[in-house]
Amino acid sequence: MRIAVDAMGGDEAPQAIVDGAYDYAISQPDHEIILVGQEDAINACLKAGSKPSNIRIHHAPSVIAMADKISALKEKPDDSMNVCSQLVKAGEADAMVLCGNTACSVAAAQLHLRRIPGVKRAGILTPLPNIEGLTWVCDCGANAVGKPEHLAQFASMASIFLEHYDHVKNPKVGVLSIGSEEGKGNELSQETLQLLKTDSGINLIGNIEGNDIYSGDADVVVCDGFTGNVVLKASEGIAKLIGNILREELHGSPLTALGGLLAKKAFKRLRERTHWSLVGGCLLLGVNGICIIGHGRSDRVAVSNAIKQASRCIEVDIMSPLRERFASKPASA
Amino acid sequence: MRIAVDAMGGDEAPQAIVDGAYDYAISQPDHEIILVGQEDAINACLKAGSKPSNIRIHHAPSVIAMADKISALKEKPDDSMNVCSQLVKAGEADAMVLCGNTACSVAAAQLHLRRIPGVKRAGILTPLPNIEGLTWVCDCGANAVGKPEHLAQFASMASIFLEHYDHVKNPKVGVLSIGSEEGKGNELSQETLQLLKTDSGINLIGNIEGNDIYSGDADVVVCDGFTGNVVLKASEGIAKLIGNILREELHGSPLTALGGLLAKKAFKRLRERTHWSLVGGCLLLGVNGICIIGHGRSDRVAVSNAIKQASRCIEVDIMSPLRERFASKPASA
Repeated sequence: MRIAVDAMGGDEAPQAIVDGAYDYAISQPDHEIILVGQEDAINACLKAGSKPSNIRIHHAPSVIAMADKISALKEKPDDSMNVCSQLVKAGEADAMVLCGNTACSVAAAQLHLRRIPGVKRAGILTPLPNIEGLTWVCDCGANAVGKPEHLAQFASMASIFLEHYDHVKNPKVGVLSIGSEEGKGNELSQETLQLLKTDSGINLIGNIEGNDIYSGDADVVVCDGFTGNVVLKASEGIAKLIGNILREELHGSPLTALGGLLAKKAFKRLRERTHWSLVGGCLLLGVNGICIIGHGRSDRVAVSNAIKQASRCIEVDIMSPLRERFASKPASA
Repeated sequence: MRIAVDAMGGDEAPQAIVDGAYDYAISQPDHEIILVGQEDAINACLKAGSKPSNIRIHHAPSVIAMADKISALKEKPDDSMNVCSQLVKAGEADAMVLCGNTACSVAAAQLHLRRIPGVKRAGILTPLPNIEGLTWVCDCGANAVGKPEHLAQFASMASIFLEHYDHVKNPKVGVLSIGSEEGKGNELSQETLQLLKTDSGINLIGNIEGNDIYSGDADVVVCDGFTGNVVLKASEGIAKLIGNILREELHGSPLTALGGLLAKKAFKRLRERTHWSLVGGCLLLGVNGICIIGHGRSDRVAVSNAIKQASRCIEVDIMSPLRERFASKPASA
């Protein structure tokens, strides 16, 4: 398999991207990584003579910055995001990983790959931790608004994704709201709930509240992209705050510092089970090709894991069941 | 000062409410606590002969359950929420604390106390932790939707609140969105930002993202009640998950368990700095009287702290500057 990676996108690009791609390439010698971006910059990041044979550089002269607007895609047709998307579109890559400017990444993917026929909106599907595994939330920011039929399609696509990607049988779907009872929530959440009730293919458990995202009660949670993005970032924010306060307090006395030292392994495991970098990226669900959106702050580990996610999507041929679902039932979900 | 407390509201009511009121009453012998609810039930919670002289019971025969709809307020006019609100309205109590069914609590307060003249919506003002103190978010669920003029009023009221309640000079106000740049966000967040720009009384710092709630960059964050409620609960959810995973991992080996034991004080401090029970409650901003909305899962400590918040509001006479603000500038904020 061949995975195109936007080497220029992300706060730590190109170094973190190249490092992550290097780690992945070493671990999977049969997979080809196509690093897309400014050739000189990429080469400068690869230590002399250390380019694994399964890494290929595809030159793209322009770069879309983190602060650029979507119009940059038209102004810079030869930038790394556009070129990655074109490689997937042309069948020269089986998937792509984009860690740069999220709005431009989402737009580039849709511009070139389009959506799966029958799908009305693409949504960012984000895995968030629960006590036993992961809860997948969609949409986490591909769109600023949502309609009930979009959220219903996200529920359907995420269910299919989970069945194939993670062998989850009959994934439990919840609608994010501000009360578990029916009738609670805003117009969007209430209408989405009613719409999902009419879809016998969905294992609907009803409304769920913000805290339930982390309880593991649902496998899939649907919401509009504004709410999903705010929840995602707020969760990162408080997790970081808790880490910072804990570090500060552990340094508060020699005794607690010693305790912290002895318990180091537990803190490492906690990080492994909750930090976003361990998942690495989010599938852009609904686009007609595999596109993993990475975190703007992706480090080496996150990039490598995002590529792993892309390879898993290729491995299970995730696009076929998704396309099939909407081919047989094209209009409203 | 006299504070009415709904003894029947909350998952742990009436025991946790009575216990929290008891703790507060003992600590502040000059303040009177009026426990409102079923007299027999309240007496049964007070240990024999241990009713401090500054606790008074005000009988209210009916109880609104956590699952009741707002219509219950009309069906049970003599329930503890209605009676609490009537006591404040009549001037027999200076403030009230309600930890029961949030939707009914909000409705009862507005039904009897009405809003401050000129205020269009009441909003739940929730303090969330940051590394140095607290960030106050409004609305966290009094309404399922919001309009720009409502959020602008929340910004104005929360700024006044913070100046008087916590001596914060010129509080920094942020609009919750999905990108820091102008133009990012949904229609509501974008229009709110523009509206706030026209208010010279607001120290506007612009859009802030979900993670910034916990960075301390803003003192006040405004958003619609759906988003605020989901963020609040999601934050509680992940904080609880982190606690559970950490506990599990600390028990993973004798070494980490010993470390956890030695670091116990740091974990206690972490909890003190981040757990919602240490703040206890949220002011229902915009209602024409002091109403603290407590957490439905309030325990003894949370209840006592919610009463403390009410007493602080009375102490600084929080209603006067709020009323004054809208008396001088009644229409749009």
